[in-house]
Amino acid sequence: MGIVTADISVTLDGYGAGPNQRSEAPFGDIDEDRLHSWMFEHATESPAEIAAITEAAAYIMGRNMFSPGRGEWDLTWKGWWGEEPPYHAPVYVLTNHEREPVPMKGGTTFNFITDGIVSALDHARAAAGSGNIAIAGGATTINQYLSAGLIDELRLHVVPFAAGVGGGSRIFDGVPPIEFDVVAARHTPYVTHLTYLRPGLSV
Amino acid sequence: MGIVTADISVTLDGYGAGPNQRSEAPFGDIDEDRLHSWMFEHATESPAEIAAITEAAAYIMGRNMFSPGRGEWDLTWKGWWGEEPPYHAPVYVLTNHEREPVPMKGGTTFNFITDGIVSALDHARAAAGSGNIAIAGGATTINQYLSAGLIDELRLHVVPFAAGVGGGSRIFDGVPPIEFDVVAARHTPYVTHLTYLRPGLSV
Repeated sequence: MGIVTADISVTLDGYGAGPNQRSEAPFGDIDEDRLHSWMFEHATESPAEIAAITEAAAYIMGRNMFSPGRGEWDLTWKGWWGEEPPYHAPVYVLTNHEREPVPMKGGTTFNFITDGIVSALDHARAAAGSGNIAIAGGATTINQYLSAGLIDELRLHVVPFAAGVGGGSRIFDGVPPIEFDVVAARHTPYVTHLTYLRPGLSV
Repeated sequence: MGIVTADISVTLDGYGAGPNQRSEAPFGDIDEDRLHSWMFEHATESPAEIAAITEAAAYIMGRNMFSPGRGEWDLTWKGWWGEEPPYHAPVYVLTNHEREPVPMKGGTTFNFITDGIVSALDHARAAAGSGNIAIAGGATTINQYLSAGLIDELRLHVVPFAAGVGGGSRIFDGVPPIEFDVVAARHTPYVTHLTYLRPGLSV
């Protein structure tokens, strides 16, 4: 059986997104370019870490990662990633509003799960077979899975600036005490890659 | 001229101390043994990082790091470190309550500064000569110096557990946006040592 992984880029003060997430600013009031420059401008310095983000066999994400909308669905919205998203696998979107699956080019299908994080994980596990399942984000969704003790491998990509925004979506907020083994730490000038495993797990 | 450094052990969720700091629990409601096991039980795996903490020529610390007391001084209190503290240099304690200097064995003298962080830094710089000045903690004091842009090298020792306490003294809390260069990342099974420099600074 595969493991459950989670990747997220965070600031030194732990933010994966700032306050006021919206269509023209999907990550809210935060320096999104700086937060993700390690993946885009400086991709050649972190090839393995970038590849690992999209090597799962199924994905789970929060609605706020999939869409800037809230409430009832705008059915014309099909994610931020264009016609061919980088997942190439089933993606389970956590939402309170039902919606039919949305198949995309390249093997990605967005499925909408309205009965909670455990149900989404069950669906993802069934789809993934022996492959891994990735909790794709954002921080709030990862925090829900952390709180439930359901993440086996947490990969934090810590970007060397503090957002200083005093709000937004912060990793570990509301998560009860939890421990990990630290198994890797590597830096480039743009990011520090930290890998944590559930204690006792070896992969 | 030396630089201004700061070392602090923090949890994955950024806490340097939990809520309810008190005499019998100087770090408050947090697993202090786990937070510092890398320095004590597992000291042989981080010798350089441990040595660096006490290599400055002058130190600054917050009153809450020096003493569990608040308000007027209990003059019998001379710190947590016994007759010969590990600093072997002047230590400037930030406080609102005046007190005469307290000389200890081995070259440590505790001096009490009532007119703010810049004054403390001026005193420390005069004492340090060409040596470095260390902001010894806690997180709240480091945050004051970070907010003022006065820290050149920040060394975070991130212990792989989340405190999940929802309170306490957290690194970067209240600090405005700030950026660093990341210059080192190294892990043992018990801690990840992250070193950040003020952009453009080389040491």
